[in-house]
Amino acid sequence: MNIAILGGTGKEGAGLAVRWAKLGHSIIIGSRDAERAKARAVELRDVAHAIPIVGHGNREAAALGEVVVVALPANGLAVTLPEVREACKGKVVISTVVPLTFGGPRLFTPPAIGSSAEEVAALLPEARVVGAFHHIAAHELVDAEHPIECDLLICGQDPAAKETVTLLGRSMGLRVLDVGPLTNAGPLEGITAVLATVNRRYKLKNSGIKITGL
Amino acid sequence: MNIAILGGTGKEGAGLAVRWAKLGHSIIIGSRDAERAKARAVELRDVAHAIPIVGHGNREAAALGEVVVVALPANGLAVTLPEVREACKGKVVISTVVPLTFGGPRLFTPPAIGSSAEEVAALLPEARVVGAFHHIAAHELVDAEHPIECDLLICGQDPAAKETVTLLGRSMGLRVLDVGPLTNAGPLEGITAVLATVNRRYKLKNSGIKITGL
Repeated sequence: MNIAILGGTGKEGAGLAVRWAKLGHSIIIGSRDAERAKARAVELRDVAHAIPIVGHGNREAAALGEVVVVALPANGLAVTLPEVREACKGKVVISTVVPLTFGGPRLFTPPAIGSSAEEVAALLPEARVVGAFHHIAAHELVDAEHPIECDLLICGQDPAAKETVTLLGRSMGLRVLDVGPLTNAGPLEGITAVLATVNRRYKLKNSGIKITGL
Repeated sequence: MNIAILGGTGKEGAGLAVRWAKLGHSIIIGSRDAERAKARAVELRDVAHAIPIVGHGNREAAALGEVVVVALPANGLAVTLPEVREACKGKVVISTVVPLTFGGPRLFTPPAIGSSAEEVAALLPEARVVGAFHHIAAHELVDAEHPIECDLLICGQDPAAKETVTLLGRSMGLRVLDVGPLTNAGPLEGITAVLATVNRRYKLKNSGIKITGL
């Protein structure tokens, strides 16, 4: 599958790119700066020992992807997403965005609409938005040799889009749990604030979350 | 230890009462209606096969507790807490409150201040508020025969207060993780929305959460 990753030059996007490329998907790294995306794609081809990673500007990347992953910083959505709106029409768009503000009075700073995923959906009204991959540490994604000890929690309005994301998650060996509608994205994104705090406090790089009782 | 549980007539409060009474703590169930609290205390004494559970009005309950647990509905805090403000001065106050709205457009509905625990702290400015016990299913608490498969995630400003809560959690056999300041209470409370959705979708009563990687 062709997977575009907007913000794929960042850590989390790059981790997903490497993991999916190793599984045989074709990855298009998107960035505001097409040259930076191309350079990053070359680096990630080396990390993944996989050929099919290319770099493009965000709009071209989104146009090439069958699935589009939004792995942008939370405060960059309103600037970047309008230019990919047409390219994302009807597509499965995965928001991995987490509205965290480091160094401020409060770590978890969701937008007024409730969550970054809902902001993505508002900016891409014809896309089929699913919130997912907020909790899988980039560090775990790059190191594909051992299983990832984390559940994949997803939410969204479109059952078929959630099914696509479920298959992408299962292909990485993840247990996938459907956590209802996109209005639950805030709680999912908030878990990343919990994990970031635990990582810092207990000097970890890759804490994760497992749901118990099922 | 004397533990007052305001809202102890509800499911979660009653579960904590039973579990702690079995461990030898003295429990004071608080309710707006002292007679209801007394009646519930009699019931819980039978469930816990333990004597030291009594019922009182909220103000008397708070005065008797060395630790005060606020297990009230999120929308009742502003009405109930002002009358216990004096009684909670300097005490460890545990907020288990979760701002969920069932049947509305959105399950997780935190107050403008960020979380119910921060609302508790604003209403009880001289109390030492810790957010905790949001995720331990009432069902698991009452059945004390098997270990609870859930981490206890806590947050708050006061290290000594968090230490008290940590010991109360460990006495139940829980692994306790410190998730930083009270501004992280929103993300902790949000996890209950995730678990409530998982319970409903997967027909469970007692899903929980474990942090992995440590």
